Amino acid sequence: MPLLSEDAKGVYVITVTPFTESGEVDWDSVDRMVDFYEEKGVTGLTILGQLGEAPKLTSEESRKIAERVIARAHVPVVVGVSAPGLAPMRELADSVMGMGAAGVMVAPPWTLKTDDQVYAFYASVAEALGKTPWVLQDYPLTTNVTIAPKVIDRIVRDLPTCVMLKHEDWPGLAKIGALRATSERGETRRISILCGNGGLFLPEEMRRGADGAMTGFCYPEMMVGVVENFARGDENRAHDIFDAYLPLARYEQQQGIGLASRKYVLAKRGVIASPTLRKPGASLSKADIADVENLLARQARRLTEIGA
Amino acid sequence: MPLLSEDAKGVYVITVTPFTESGEVDWDSVDRMVDFYEEKGVTGLTILGQLGEAPKLTSEESRKIAERVIARAHVPVVVGVSAPGLAPMRELADSVMGMGAAGVMVAPPWTLKTDDQVYAFYASVAEALGKTPWVLQDYPLTTNVTIAPKVIDRIVRDLPTCVMLKHEDWPGLAKIGALRATSERGETRRISILCGNGGLFLPEEMRRGADGAMTGFCYPEMMVGVVENFARGDENRAHDIFDAYLPLARYEQQQGIGLASRKYVLAKRGVIASPTLRKPGASLSKADIADVENLLARQARRLTEIGA
Amino acid sequence: MPLLSEDAKGVYVITVTPFTESGEVDWDSVDRMVDFYEEKGVTGLTILGQLGEAPKLTSEESRKIAERVIARAHVPVVVGVSAPGLAPMRELADSVMGMGAAGVMVAPPWTLKTDDQVYAFYASVAEALGKTPWVLQDYPLTTNVTIAPKVIDRIVRDLPTCVMLKHEDWPGLAKIGALRATSERGETRRISILCGNGGLFLPEEMRRGADGAMTGFCYPEMMVGVVENFARGDENRAHDIFDAYLPLARYEQQQGIGLASRKYVLAKRGVIASPTLRKPGASLSKADIADVENLLARQARRLTEIGA
Amino acid sequence: MPLLSEDAKGVYVITVTPFTESGEVDWDSVDRMVDFYEEKGVTGLTILGQLGEAPKLTSEESRKIAERVIARAHVPVVVGVSAPGLAPMRELADSVMGMGAAGVMVAPPWTLKTDDQVYAFYASVAEALGKTPWVLQDYPLTTNVTIAPKVIDRIVRDLPTCVMLKHEDWPGLAKIGALRATSERGETRRISILCGNGGLFLPEEMRRGADGAMTGFCYPEMMVGVVENFARGDENRAHDIFDAYLPLARYEQQQGIGLASRKYVLAKRGVIASPTLRKPGASLSKADIADVENLLARQARRLTEIGA
Repeated sequence: MPLLSEDAKGVYVITVTPFTESGEVDWDSVDRMVDFYEEKGVTGLTILGQLGEAPKLTSEESRKIAERVIARAHVPVVVGVSAPGLAPMRELADSVMGMGAAGVMVAPPWTLKTDDQVYAFYASVAEALGKTPWVLQDYPLTTNVTIAPKVIDRIVRDLPTCVMLKHEDWPGLAKIGALRATSERGETRRISILCGNGGLFLPEEMRRGADGAMTGFCYPEMMVGVVENFARGDENRAHDIFDAYLPLARYEQQQGIGLASRKYVLAKRGVIASPTLRKPGASLSKADIADVENLLARQARRLTEIGA
Repeated sequence: MPLLSEDAKGVYVITVTPFTESGEVDWDSVDRMVDFYEEKGVTGLTILGQLGEAPKLTSEESRKIAERVIARAHVPVVVGVSAPGLAPMRELADSVMGMGAAGVMVAPPWTLKTDDQVYAFYASVAEALGKTPWVLQDYPLTTNVTIAPKVIDRIVRDLPTCVMLKHEDWPGLAKIGALRATSERGETRRISILCGNGGLFLPEEMRRGADGAMTGFCYPEMMVGVVENFARGDENRAHDIFDAYLPLARYEQQQGIGLASRKYVLAKRGVIASPTLRKPGASLSKADIADVENLLARQARRLTEIGA
Repeated sequence: MPLLSEDAKGVYVITVTPFTESGEVDWDSVDRMVDFYEEKGVTGLTILGQLGEAPKLTSEESRKIAERVIARAHVPVVVGVSAPGLAPMRELADSVMGMGAAGVMVAPPWTLKTDDQVYAFYASVAEALGKTPWVLQDYPLTTNVTIAPKVIDRIVRDLPTCVMLKHEDWPGLAKIGALRATSERGETRRISILCGNGGLFLPEEMRRGADGAMTGFCYPEMMVGVVENFARGDENRAHDIFDAYLPLARYEQQQGIGLASRKYVLAKRGVIASPTLRKPGASLSKADIADVENLLARQARRLTEIGA
Repeated sequence: MPLLSEDAKGVYVITVTPFTESGEVDWDSVDRMVDFYEEKGVTGLTILGQLGEAPKLTSEESRKIAERVIARAHVPVVVGVSAPGLAPMRELADSVMGMGAAGVMVAPPWTLKTDDQVYAFYASVAEALGKTPWVLQDYPLTTNVTIAPKVIDRIVRDLPTCVMLKHEDWPGLAKIGALRATSERGETRRISILCGNGGLFLPEEMRRGADGAMTGFCYPEMMVGVVENFARGDENRAHDIFDAYLPLARYEQQQGIGLASRKYVLAKRGVIASPTLRKPGASLSKADIADVENLLARQARRLTEIGA
């Protein structure tokens, strides 16, 4: 599998972790999920991310999931390796790169505050990771670390193995614009920018120069449709598709219950066998399910109206 | 003006604070804004809230704005009086109630942690406010204080002057359901629940038993339309209206830039003379304005399609 | 009264706000407190700080306390004017400077994150305050804003009205060293650095080049003794005095209960009439009082041993 | 080795993780450290805690350190097993209990807010851990979770495998009193309470009914001396010892630099071969070392004075 590079475009979907009703990893569903995402046109897969249920896995399970997904997938796989120390980060990175991962992703620890602290952290990450290409995960809502555009520019300038920004600042549209401006002026490399936050700002992010999405949603068709239509210059069509999915995408952005909703729909679509979240995890109430079903029915009608 | 009560329903819109380009309070725009909201069918006004620009006002300006709005309005006015101490809170509350306000709103200080601490705070608030009816502002995203449904039930049971919940927990749908369940079982009073967060979950909140909205958006028509259609039992129509406005409502939820966007549209609609935010405040870039104009154009087409 | 300048040295004690048992401002105690602090050798007074009970005052009470203290004092008075907006900050600053204050103090709002955001905030503060000299309050534990030494250097270089740092970062010894290094190399002005955090690191802070203390403690003699002995080169004596008071100073650093402890001792010493904290505020239990009395008795013995 | 029980008393020291200068685990120093702590009279050892450098270890290294320490020690060993999910927590707990650990310690995830959420988390922990005795780590400063005394009482009442509280709330003296009051009234079991926060409030904690300390300091003699003298009823002697060590203990409480200081002294005392912190980690500047040496010299004099 080729390594991740600055040229990456499209949709690197954040995968869920399928469990059986008793809370064991459901390996058949893992396989089916990989196939499903590929059928829907994603360009890559991102596993073991910060959110989701990766932290609930034992280290042995994490390793096995990485192996299984990488072996099954025909698209590049990015693996989250964030850790409080460089030693466990490097250990996991070396392990998954050996399995054939395309690159790794690193979020900053919440203790970082000033510009120089953020830069120094990523300089030490780059040193620890050696030749492995890596994604800078910029996700202040969860990490509580805000990274100024000029700090990202400095990282990009000094650390050639940083090839992608997972852009999840919020509000973050101005940040995309600032980063693209410096690379257009030739002051920095142009790296890949893929956007997160459930795709809730994806059309506007594409308008500012993003290369695609790296996020989760029970209909990856949405992200793929938006990104492809932007690629072919049909912004209006991209917005039509986005708007049709937006009410459900918004519902999935609820903390905790949102992931339960995503798994509910993926199970309903036949992708995973059970919507179960491993403990401790939320589950949908009857009222939640009624909401989701209502949104699905309205979404289906809307998609028919726009011929999608 | 009658006092706020448990029966309050509809839309209590959170107003903006209009400034001239040089940053002075724009009194003509204050008047026009009150008229505009009333023309669009709101049931009440909420001023001097936690977010928005109230903290940028001098105490003299705050008092004058309260006076001006209360004198002009034909609907009830709720005034935010949150303060770190009971003395300044009571001072402001007494002052605005003397002007004819319908009630006041109190958010918890961020230092509260346990269930008993939250309860004790509101017990002391109720004692300090005397007979003034008040709104419990439940807004964890900003206050960092999470209030369990059973704590709200206890407050409602013990403190009769608490007549309304400004519901802004997120995710918060289950909370509405829990509160309605206890009042339906006769264990607590049924108080008014008005929802915030820019109305981004308003249809689902109405489905769970909310009485309306207390939030801001440059098209109060959205909240009014959703609430009225729920009131007449036409949920589908409520969703149609909501969906048409959702892309713009989502855009307005961006911190900082969202308020600039709201003022931009209110200025464009002729409600306020200038979109200026008082310093320190964000302003829209060319790219932001292009986004908003694009969303407005698409929204207008969609509203035409659904005949709204 | 002369204005605050870069040459300020010594102890600017953070005052308490004396209340009667029923929670009214106790004006006689305000006067006695000013006299007490001056008798104990402080160089200045700091009022209306972030912590303490200033936020519990009405705006009218705040103004009157500033007037009373400034009129009574023979030493410079610094007034805390931190506010979420520039307009109310300037209003209070202009008011107290008109009364004869020596300068004002401004903490950053918690929303600031990156280096440039912090700098931009203080640039706008300096512009709003005009010729008024001001103190940069660097207190990450409460404000959640970490300010890198190079950002302080940039502020000092560009904004001549910034004359003092209230140093309250923790750990913060390296920061004092970094700031002194740049001014010794002639790259920045040398401003006054007064230290906070209850004086718990005062000897080490003086060793790194601090000019004194700006903090509260029921025995201002401690801070005065440490700073004076450092000034005359007797570090060992400074440490002896510090160590004698440290067990009680440590006890006073407990959140909430610490302020109650400080007022208990000040009342016992005859400075203020009542140890009452205005609501909502902590009060000492019997066990707390037993702790404080035990610490006072041990402290008295130790002070006798060292002949202080 | 017997299992941890409600009767535990004394000092369970939080160990450091010794590294060579190149950042490898230094196994000889691990052994020497275990011997050193036992020679100084500690009652138990606590390893792989939240702070310190455990998060910088690979999972293999963590397992090996647990094995080495448990095999070497003649006193009970408690192992930190906090994890975001129950599966990895149980995996580590089962592993170390199989090696002969006395019990495990669990801190709450930062996402918990309300009383019921905290209780539900620990109920699921107890279920997952089976018969393994566990320590409730109450450390709001780091976890951001405040646990009310009545929630701890409920946990103690319902979950018999909870045998100890690692008390690290701050301020937390009233909490110890509240917990002891309910067990004295026969409303709950009396569990062991060992205190943290570097021992900075140890004498006052013992006065309220704590059973000892579970924390780190380069002179475990301090904690042992305070606890033993309280046990034999000589409070005054306990305070004398405490006061002699307090200036250095305070210095060690600085975030980051404090751990470097602890390792510096342990290396100087011949316990560990190198003071190195694994990356990313702080190191002492010349000025820091001068501070520590000054405090050590003063401490030695003071210990001689009091004959300790």
